[in-house]
Amino acid sequence: MKTLLLHARTFARIAPRLKGLNAALNIVTVDDASSFHDAWTSEKLAEAPPVQLAFGNIDAFYSPSVREFMTAILKSPNFDWFQSAAAGIENPALVAIGQKSQRYTTNHTQAEAMAEWAVWQAMDFLRAGPAHRANQAAGKWERIRVREMFGSRWLIVGYGSIGQAIGRRVTALGGVVTGMRRSPGPAEGAARIVPPDALMAELPEADIVLLCPPHTPETEGMANAAFFEAMNKDALFMNLGRGALVDEPALMAALDAGRLAFAVLDVTRIEPLPAEDPLWRHHKVVITPHDSSDTPGTIARGDETFLANLDAYLNNKPLRHLVDRSAFPAS
Amino acid sequence: MKTLLLHARTFARIAPRLKGLNAALNIVTVDDASSFHDAWTSEKLAEAPPVQLAFGNIDAFYSPSVREFMTAILKSPNFDWFQSAAAGIENPALVAIGQKSQRYTTNHTQAEAMAEWAVWQAMDFLRAGPAHRANQAAGKWERIRVREMFGSRWLIVGYGSIGQAIGRRVTALGGVVTGMRRSPGPAEGAARIVPPDALMAELPEADIVLLCPPHTPETEGMANAAFFEAMNKDALFMNLGRGALVDEPALMAALDAGRLAFAVLDVTRIEPLPAEDPLWRHHKVVITPHDSSDTPGTIARGDETFLANLDAYLNNKPLRHLVDRSAFPAS
Repeated sequence: MKTLLLHARTFARIAPRLKGLNAALNIVTVDDASSFHDAWTSEKLAEAPPVQLAFGNIDAFYSPSVREFMTAILKSPNFDWFQSAAAGIENPALVAIGQKSQRYTTNHTQAEAMAEWAVWQAMDFLRAGPAHRANQAAGKWERIRVREMFGSRWLIVGYGSIGQAIGRRVTALGGVVTGMRRSPGPAEGAARIVPPDALMAELPEADIVLLCPPHTPETEGMANAAFFEAMNKDALFMNLGRGALVDEPALMAALDAGRLAFAVLDVTRIEPLPAEDPLWRHHKVVITPHDSSDTPGTIARGDETFLANLDAYLNNKPLRHLVDRSAFPAS
Repeated sequence: MKTLLLHARTFARIAPRLKGLNAALNIVTVDDASSFHDAWTSEKLAEAPPVQLAFGNIDAFYSPSVREFMTAILKSPNFDWFQSAAAGIENPALVAIGQKSQRYTTNHTQAEAMAEWAVWQAMDFLRAGPAHRANQAAGKWERIRVREMFGSRWLIVGYGSIGQAIGRRVTALGGVVTGMRRSPGPAEGAARIVPPDALMAELPEADIVLLCPPHTPETEGMANAAFFEAMNKDALFMNLGRGALVDEPALMAALDAGRLAFAVLDVTRIEPLPAEDPLWRHHKVVITPHDSSDTPGTIARGDETFLANLDAYLNNKPLRHLVDRSAFPAS
């Protein structure tokens, strides 16, 4: 019988959905204090047993016990299937699991919460949030003429699940979306699809440029001095992808020179961003701590993806969002 | 020949659209320095001539020359048609014009920008904007679990043009909208329509309560202690209507007591809000200075409404958004 590893909070949440599986599956939990338990009997285990299946979500990866969670997977002699709660696979911990696991599946439901982040930050930029807040702090009643989402022109670089979740919302609000990706269009939420080599021609046309491509050698550092130079001086730059996509000193220099208007980053080259990093205090930069997907809705949707794939796994049906093993080359 | 009064900025913007009318219409402009000019010849006039038509928009009403603009209308012996750029008619200046003018037409295109304001402020509340900004100011990288627009439950009190513009956007983003108004449903953007006497039953069910009803004796002070007591303690209160709808001391007391979570006000009982008013500095209150509609898009859409009605006026066709004269009782 296979053993499934879950964070204790995940088990507590989905236990009613797992009832009836105790004949088919052992379940082991790890809690924030790094204790392992048999999930159904609550018996405390002296150490992590060998596990064959695991669900790696926010509960597990942002827990103080993340190291024990990882080790339990990596030391198991025969690890069979890992369900990630994320879409990306380039994180070193995830690469290690991908190399170890017979099967590795991703999850694309973080896109919904991430798209709400993009709407939030775009509205705050277009509506002059910082200027309004400065006036409120000063008790100053002064009308500010602001821009509209309606008719705003977006360039979304990387038009996969996240890009499309953003595009659907922006289009519904009257914005005009250009999606950039290798595979040609059409695609949901975009007025048109353009290839990556159109980047420098498209940048000046956008009011809002948002990055969410995969992190690859081609996209590493793509937002550099030339990129910002090509942007419209009134435009907003947003990064929902990876910090390594952006040359941060070049971004700050471009903001200081007025080559673009503002930047919002959910990801940074070093995470957590050190308290002394100048990005924190740049008056034209908003930082969020890589938490754009951190909502109860993301957790609930991630649980559903896992439960559907677990049902498929136990019934020998194809798993959804299976990643080809060649994506995890031995290092 | 009739004479039309426009603010100079309005004329500069729409002059190309008025060409060909110089045989049918005199046009007089007033600028921010309170000088009157013949629009087509640019000849400066010694004083305001009698006018029969006027377009009262942001240019006119937020100009230092607003008094001269008003006086030119009110002293004209035979004033025939006033096009307002606003939906509301209870402002004392507008009431005076309504009593004077043979015909008075409103405009409902401010609703689009006002609805974007509602999306902006709701997202900033749901996404924990203040907490994120406090962490950024402290250089503190700390994930915050936030709420989603998707599935949020809205109660929009007053479901006219503004309410529906909000409802359409919220529904497109996955929120669930209850519209409250006298006339029964269905109505665009709302899952259901409820009557005003359902207020106390509906308040506890909403994550976001937004006011945009007309200001009448029935709605004056409607958001009082009992109203806030009935709200969900995690809920947001927003006012896009008139300041007089809200008992502001009761709102602050309810926020202090934790009866609701946060409030966002675009309108206040006294406008401009005095610098010493405690609302400015309440940590659970966001104030915007009655500028929710102040976008280039609102101006452009208001111009279109005026131009369409001007064409109708000159061709003796029915005017759109004509207000019944009984709405302006002699005081």
